[in-house]
Amino acid sequence: MEMPRFALKIEYLGKPFSGWQNQRGQLTVQQVVEDAVRELDPACIGVHGAGRTDAGVHALGQVAHCDLARDWDAFRLSEALNYHLRPHPVAILGAARVPDSFHARFSAIGRCYVYRIVSRRSPLTIRRNRAWHIRHELDLEAMRQGAAQLLGLHDFTTFRSAACQARSPVRTLDALDVRLEQTNHQTEYVLVATAQSFLHRQVRSIVGTLERVGSGAWTPDQVGEALQARTRNACGPVAPAHGLYLSDVRYSQDFFGNVRSSDCIEEPGAAGEI
Amino acid sequence: MEMPRFALKIEYLGKPFSGWQNQRGQLTVQQVVEDAVRELDPACIGVHGAGRTDAGVHALGQVAHCDLARDWDAFRLSEALNYHLRPHPVAILGAARVPDSFHARFSAIGRCYVYRIVSRRSPLTIRRNRAWHIRHELDLEAMRQGAAQLLGLHDFTTFRSAACQARSPVRTLDALDVRLEQTNHQTEYVLVATAQSFLHRQVRSIVGTLERVGSGAWTPDQVGEALQARTRNACGPVAPAHGLYLSDVRYSQDFFGNVRSSDCIEEPGAAGEI
Repeated sequence: MEMPRFALKIEYLGKPFSGWQNQRGQLTVQQVVEDAVRELDPACIGVHGAGRTDAGVHALGQVAHCDLARDWDAFRLSEALNYHLRPHPVAILGAARVPDSFHARFSAIGRCYVYRIVSRRSPLTIRRNRAWHIRHELDLEAMRQGAAQLLGLHDFTTFRSAACQARSPVRTLDALDVRLEQTNHQTEYVLVATAQSFLHRQVRSIVGTLERVGSGAWTPDQVGEALQARTRNACGPVAPAHGLYLSDVRYSQDFFGNVRSSDCIEEPGAAGEI
Repeated sequence: MEMPRFALKIEYLGKPFSGWQNQRGQLTVQQVVEDAVRELDPACIGVHGAGRTDAGVHALGQVAHCDLARDWDAFRLSEALNYHLRPHPVAILGAARVPDSFHARFSAIGRCYVYRIVSRRSPLTIRRNRAWHIRHELDLEAMRQGAAQLLGLHDFTTFRSAACQARSPVRTLDALDVRLEQTNHQTEYVLVATAQSFLHRQVRSIVGTLERVGSGAWTPDQVGEALQARTRNACGPVAPAHGLYLSDVRYSQDFFGNVRSSDCIEEPGAAGEI
């Protein structure tokens, strides 16, 4: 029996969830999305995500796919799923009928993560759990110099979790932009990382290390030395999950048309600023 | 006995609170701040705010004053209050020793409110309770034309709550800017209103009416006609509380120095765009 395959573009707040991936007895984003899909199609086997975000990590544009028993109108599918997702802070930004060969994870040709840091003395209120709160200022130029040393193809053993299951620690970091952004009430440091794929905790390991550079505790050159060391011990502290956003997942074809949600799409020239 | 007076610049998330002003049996921002102050100074009579924000309304720069038994260092005072405010989403952005003649409410020469609207089909997740979610697009130019009719000195009876206790319905609206802002993952419509003082629910009444203009249900001229009617019945729907931010309160002197938190301060030229 032919089962049409659909891709879903998903936004969520990380706070209430034990990450994307299903774990027995835990509230996960995958579980919540699968529950919503099964309200429409009880026989649905499962929903497969492009990235397994950790507990507390947000998504602006996670992508997942699933096979459904009937050929839904994509717009009606996203509306129906949003209805069933309530009251969880998970939203289907768009849905698209995709070829049977499409796989949210294996077909992805690019991923973009955004990391947000707020520097101020007082605790966060409106932005709580939505950015990493630090109390000192950061040297943007030093962070950019440190970031530049990580661009390109490297063995990122230093910057991956000890539990990372990827067979190879080699990845190509296509862009690592560090910029200031004025939000509704303060300045935030925003790091944007782009690669075909990332290792487990790679972005948070890199951000935690660059924060040490921005604070003056590390020189920019020490980032390159840590990379060369190829040992987890050389990494700086891992930045907290709640500052991280899976911003965008790219495929060879833009299935979601004008559903645009991410920093990465909005600012194609950003990487050039490094 | 001489009691030094302090002004506090306060940020808060509106969601958990029944507004600023104390009400028996309710959790209010004023109560939470007074509780924190009394941890330092049990005899403190109370904390007086510049604006009585309604339930659900946020503040980026509420100002309050209180008299303390001893002459605190302003920085240490804000740090100590932030410690005692935990875990409430309320932060003291700054504190300042002010003259005994200073009154947070009566000395204010200007107030600025920001209202945020997000237009998209899917429900909000990360921005939930932080913006008004609507499902249609708005005509920015029409809203600006409608807004222009409210500028200056007018009888704002149409745009104040029936429960408003102000003696006069006459106010001078100094600026009412309508603009688009790109946040971390979407476009928001941002309305910025500035006046010496506002009537109860004036900003939400104006925003709700301008939203009707932006959606095409009202013409821009109907805003002027509603104003002229001087009756509450002529007002559009009142916009929800959770899109509104008390952004800034201004005094003849800038007591908080470089504590800068608001849209209004950042963009002095914004009003000219209308």
